[in-house]
Amino acid sequence: MTRMTILTEAELRRIVVLDREAVACVENAFHSLATRAVAMPPILRLDIPEHRGEVDVKTAYVPGLDGFAIKISPGFFENPKIGLPSTNGMMVLLSSQTGLVQAVLLDNGYLTDVRTAAAGAVAAKHLSRENSSVAAIFGAGMQARLQLEALTLVRPIREARLWARDAAKAEAAATALTVKLGFPVKASIDPQAAVADADIVVTTTPAEKPILEAAWLEPGQHVTVMGSDAEHKNELDPRAIARATYVADSLKQTRRLGELHHAIAAGVVGPDAEFAELGQVIAGLRAGRTSANEITIADLTGTGIQDTAIATLAFARANAANAGSTFES
Amino acid sequence: MTRMTILTEAELRRIVVLDREAVACVENAFHSLATRAVAMPPILRLDIPEHRGEVDVKTAYVPGLDGFAIKISPGFFENPKIGLPSTNGMMVLLSSQTGLVQAVLLDNGYLTDVRTAAAGAVAAKHLSRENSSVAAIFGAGMQARLQLEALTLVRPIREARLWARDAAKAEAAATALTVKLGFPVKASIDPQAAVADADIVVTTTPAEKPILEAAWLEPGQHVTVMGSDAEHKNELDPRAIARATYVADSLKQTRRLGELHHAIAAGVVGPDAEFAELGQVIAGLRAGRTSANEITIADLTGTGIQDTAIATLAFARANAANAGSTFES
Repeated sequence: MTRMTILTEAELRRIVVLDREAVACVENAFHSLATRAVAMPPILRLDIPEHRGEVDVKTAYVPGLDGFAIKISPGFFENPKIGLPSTNGMMVLLSSQTGLVQAVLLDNGYLTDVRTAAAGAVAAKHLSRENSSVAAIFGAGMQARLQLEALTLVRPIREARLWARDAAKAEAAATALTVKLGFPVKASIDPQAAVADADIVVTTTPAEKPILEAAWLEPGQHVTVMGSDAEHKNELDPRAIARATYVADSLKQTRRLGELHHAIAAGVVGPDAEFAELGQVIAGLRAGRTSANEITIADLTGTGIQDTAIATLAFARANAANAGSTFES
Repeated sequence: MTRMTILTEAELRRIVVLDREAVACVENAFHSLATRAVAMPPILRLDIPEHRGEVDVKTAYVPGLDGFAIKISPGFFENPKIGLPSTNGMMVLLSSQTGLVQAVLLDNGYLTDVRTAAAGAVAAKHLSRENSSVAAIFGAGMQARLQLEALTLVRPIREARLWARDAAKAEAAATALTVKLGFPVKASIDPQAAVADADIVVTTTPAEKPILEAAWLEPGQHVTVMGSDAEHKNELDPRAIARATYVADSLKQTRRLGELHHAIAAGVVGPDAEFAELGQVIAGLRAGRTSANEITIADLTGTGIQDTAIATLAFARANAANAGSTFES
């Protein structure tokens, strides 16, 4: 008989929030990716075209952590027609020593939202100028909101602009964020104007053609591009990569899925061009920003180590708070 | 909020047993594999060499079924030293229409045991002579016991011999099976003698070198080889495949993992040689046994469709019996 903890989304929302500890746990995971023998096999993917469905299964083992997560992420794009979200999912945390199930995290994708935003904070912490105070966010969805919130954990953000294709959604998100964060967040109808004079730009859209032009970028800016998690997605003008310091979350992935993939396809960089990974910058193994004037770009496609990191944090907090239901099986 | 059912191993053992319905559900799954657009992506595998651990994740979508299973199967081979089983695991059943989690099956590998044995019954039903009454089983573990029990569901078995490397274990298994099944099961110290005059031979061991010689096989016998689920495992003398009617559970898998893999490596058959799959025989698309004198061989490596089939059965029975705990998340 094994004892395991089952946590619902509501319980997970109570014990794990986007805070400095969540950012630190994702930062440590990236550090491990650069310095330890992390095992991160390719994603398992199942397609169900009859229902416009797909499921990704991700995992990663980080030596030194007691557990490793297996994340099941379904995306069923007809769901909104029947009042359900397109994406949901859950994670299973297994013991690294015995393979026994430690916890089942029925998060409906919530922990993915948190770990994704936390990676944005980690990128800004290591690549943006320390005094960055103005942010420009592209997109008006959950990640647009969380990425801005994440920036406030690592930089003294005092003002933000938010642009989205749907102006009404941009307006609503900006209003909600102003109330939540306590500084002015303005919806912008002009993406170029939103980027002008910003210290940090974060793109969070499902765009399939660039929405951020290379010519708009200004010396000193940091850009985090996190919408591109599949081959066909593309937010950033590939030419931007040629004139910036480019950092990948996982070079293996960004060459295949990220903005780098489009820059390679466009012939802007070579297919084998070497770039730093975020973990290497964190660990001091490779340079990130080296001057106040350069443009830095973080290309985030999402990695299994982030899932293992956030699931480990959730399980530790659940134990400390005696949260969740215990099952013997 | 989604509603899902969580079932423990004890609950699953109460509602799912190795019976004719379990055999029929696995038979239908193989039929679908041959006749419908089943999606069965390659296995995701994570290795944790520090702890002699490995995890396989399997899935398969069968059109027409309401759900599909994702199975997490860890094997941690130091576990017995601390009193834990090497293998355990669980399944998650997701809706084929929405991707929402329908059920979490905390089976610790029990459903895998049942669906694996059920495949043995399906193979014997479609490949052995109808009047088969004498079985020879190699191995003394859980599958040795379940495979013999499975044969009794499809053939009029009246006698069995059981051979295993460990004679004491063979004796204990034979005694237990005699009591359970109500016909004589005798432990044999000579594998060749166990095979002589048997109608059906089933090998269930983790052998890495052949334990069943081609020369021992007699006209009319059916052989199910189910131990070889990894590249290095090998129970059957490869020459046997050259003189028999060979049927794979999944030809793609047996070319890589099964006994066929060793026959190809030994040069006994060509790498692209075509053979029937079990589902094609079930569906009448290819011939299985065509005479009482031929030798038939079923090479079973285990497939994701079996997991989806048994998880679907478990969920249906849980609903009918109002079993398990309901979670909203």
